[in-house]
Amino acid sequence: MNILSIIEHKANGDILTHEEIRYFIDHYVDGSIPDYQMASLLMAIKLKGMNAQETSDLTLAMVHSGETIDLSAIEGVKVDKHSTGGVGDKTSLVVGPLVASLGLKLAKMSGKGLGHTGGTIDKLESIPGLTTALTQAQFIQQVQTVGMAIIGQTKALVPADKLLYALRDVTGTVQSIPLIASSIMSKKIASGAQTILLDVKYGNGAFMKTIEDAKVLARAMVDIGKALGRDTRALLSDMNQPLGLAIGNRLEVKEAMATLKGQGPDDFTQLCVEAAAVIAIQAGLYSDLTVAKAAVTNQLQSGRALTIFNQFIHAQGGDLNAFNQPSLHHVDVVKPILATSSGIIHAVEALPLGLLSVDLGAGRLTKADVIDFNAGIVLHVKPGDTVQKGDTLCTLYTNKPWVASWETTAREAFHLQKKAYHAPHDAFIMIE
Amino acid sequence: MNILSIIEHKANGDILTHEEIRYFIDHYVDGSIPDYQMASLLMAIKLKGMNAQETSDLTLAMVHSGETIDLSAIEGVKVDKHSTGGVGDKTSLVVGPLVASLGLKLAKMSGKGLGHTGGTIDKLESIPGLTTALTQAQFIQQVQTVGMAIIGQTKALVPADKLLYALRDVTGTVQSIPLIASSIMSKKIASGAQTILLDVKYGNGAFMKTIEDAKVLARAMVDIGKALGRDTRALLSDMNQPLGLAIGNRLEVKEAMATLKGQGPDDFTQLCVEAAAVIAIQAGLYSDLTVAKAAVTNQLQSGRALTIFNQFIHAQGGDLNAFNQPSLHHVDVVKPILATSSGIIHAVEALPLGLLSVDLGAGRLTKADVIDFNAGIVLHVKPGDTVQKGDTLCTLYTNKPWVASWETTAREAFHLQKKAYHAPHDAFIMIE
Repeated sequence: MNILSIIEHKANGDILTHEEIRYFIDHYVDGSIPDYQMASLLMAIKLKGMNAQETSDLTLAMVHSGETIDLSAIEGVKVDKHSTGGVGDKTSLVVGPLVASLGLKLAKMSGKGLGHTGGTIDKLESIPGLTTALTQAQFIQQVQTVGMAIIGQTKALVPADKLLYALRDVTGTVQSIPLIASSIMSKKIASGAQTILLDVKYGNGAFMKTIEDAKVLARAMVDIGKALGRDTRALLSDMNQPLGLAIGNRLEVKEAMATLKGQGPDDFTQLCVEAAAVIAIQAGLYSDLTVAKAAVTNQLQSGRALTIFNQFIHAQGGDLNAFNQPSLHHVDVVKPILATSSGIIHAVEALPLGLLSVDLGAGRLTKADVIDFNAGIVLHVKPGDTVQKGDTLCTLYTNKPWVASWETTAREAFHLQKKAYHAPHDAFIMIE
Repeated sequence: MNILSIIEHKANGDILTHEEIRYFIDHYVDGSIPDYQMASLLMAIKLKGMNAQETSDLTLAMVHSGETIDLSAIEGVKVDKHSTGGVGDKTSLVVGPLVASLGLKLAKMSGKGLGHTGGTIDKLESIPGLTTALTQAQFIQQVQTVGMAIIGQTKALVPADKLLYALRDVTGTVQSIPLIASSIMSKKIASGAQTILLDVKYGNGAFMKTIEDAKVLARAMVDIGKALGRDTRALLSDMNQPLGLAIGNRLEVKEAMATLKGQGPDDFTQLCVEAAAVIAIQAGLYSDLTVAKAAVTNQLQSGRALTIFNQFIHAQGGDLNAFNQPSLHHVDVVKPILATSSGIIHAVEALPLGLLSVDLGAGRLTKADVIDFNAGIVLHVKPGDTVQKGDTLCTLYTNKPWVASWETTAREAFHLQKKAYHAPHDAFIMIE
């Protein structure tokens, strides 16, 4: 076996064997296959695809490239959730406490934000004192006692993914379903949970622009999870508009806390309840979605999920008293963006608002950028709302020198029309 | 413009612009595009193809990466021929003198052999004293006075091709019509001739295994030549069996000299006459192929082509007296391979005999290998011949320690059957 024959097999559209896939991952990680050969193979995979067997073989080979987390010391059902990323996506901060309050164990590894999509680690680290750098022993201990813990990705897990992603990023091979699916799932598998819920976004603010592409990615990931013995399901949800009202790290933590008190925006609350209910079904707590959703909603309304959230933040060193001081949230510029005409909101575009939030300081364009936890955007209206000229569409928060074009960018993300708005059928789509 | 967007365009199946193609060639040659990005792009080109415009743009961009030869000082029609390579292919040694004897000017740059296909430079350098390392001034002077000169490839011409070929060789991207066609044609265009005849081989001993693939390659190369203002035609010929009877450098030079005396094997003589006649038509000497072939045959029979050959060898320092000394051709082992049964020869496979000739010392597996000019194979029979058990099928010549399996390999290249042999329709196919 050699890398040239593997490249030629894939370029011919052949199905790679388990041994071939293991060979190229092992030898790329050990440095004996150079970048230029892997780049050629990645392009062949992008253009010729991989079937379900190859994709799960690739995932497993990537998992084997590094350490895995052993969650067996934790009693109960270990669950994990993963979002493909969106604008205003603070779902883990609510779903985690919800499922932990039902007795499940959420052992989650999260990433930092990059580009227009935020990251759970940044949102958590916006709370004074909080650390996501736990040892594996601390992580397991906290999941045992609190019911949940969220840590940053460690370098020891799936080193193949870090190497491959860096190469894909500079060789035009990012957009490939088997490569995206194996990248995400290798980290989920290495993290050790028994059941995995994938929150797959579609729309202009998401990695997958169409619902069709999102379905294909979700199917590939669910198939990998099943092939590797994990109960894996995917929930498809809309990312054409921001999720909830808040974009930006501390703004989103506040919205998550409000949601845990039953005071969150409808769209975000619905997604959290749906996701938590599906995880509860996966864990075997319920068999009917309606019953599961009622139980989850009760955990919100009773305050039990909020109690878990407070314990979780405290356990990781976070100081909610300090977080709740108004002075912590000061920004130099608070700029309301007003409607210049009257009408009905037909769309609030996620992508331009996500990119604007980065400009305001809330995100990173490169890994070296420093985040301003207070920067961001709060929407005042969502699709279907009626506005009069002069009403506030959203408010921008920044510590950067004001840039005049930001106002236009923000306003143009809101599409006003005179005609009536009909909400799309917004049921979540489940892939299992 | 940047390399990532170019990779993505080609991966999407888009047609690359002239500017994009010029950009990636220029920046690969200057080192600012790394191998891994070029490897990804090459695989995208292999799998998505290039149209005729892109392929000629690529060829021209490659030509511009280095120097070009200016043949304008030479009076008359400057012609060139190129073979895609085969087993026993010594055509240039006969076609060159034939067309020069008609008053045309053959200014040819040739390669060394690699693998089972030989190279014209090696065959020429098997003549004592001969050099193919002429200066450009010497080259032009000799074409003027003798009518032909053949030199080795210079590093200054088409450096992009050397870089790209080395990368294609290790990234599974050799087999791509636009990449093969632009590689060959960039060197032909940079060499400066007005008319180009491509001798495109198909069959087990050739780079293109089927006549269909050979037609596609020939069409791509002819289209490039035309797009870049050169009268370019291609002659497709069979390489399922070795061309002529001799394989190996000095053995082939002797066969070429015999052919120039009208004593060559039929198949090789026919190809040389056909090729020279087509070049004569391209140069405007004749308009009818039958008339042209009669004129070319006359140059053979009159000895005029042989005179040119002698002048050409002499001009490049070759000593034909020394070459004609029997002692120069001594080998330690001369091994006749005998038929073990009687029958009619239905096939003589080129590929195993080409590979065997390399084992005997006549060729290179890597560029560092040293050639034994005397090693090789002479066929005693060709398809259609009847043999009795004990007749000699071929003779092997080597200075290496004898390997028992060579006898079997040689014998099994000859396919004997009891039934009558019907020669395939062997007219040459012209692509223009």
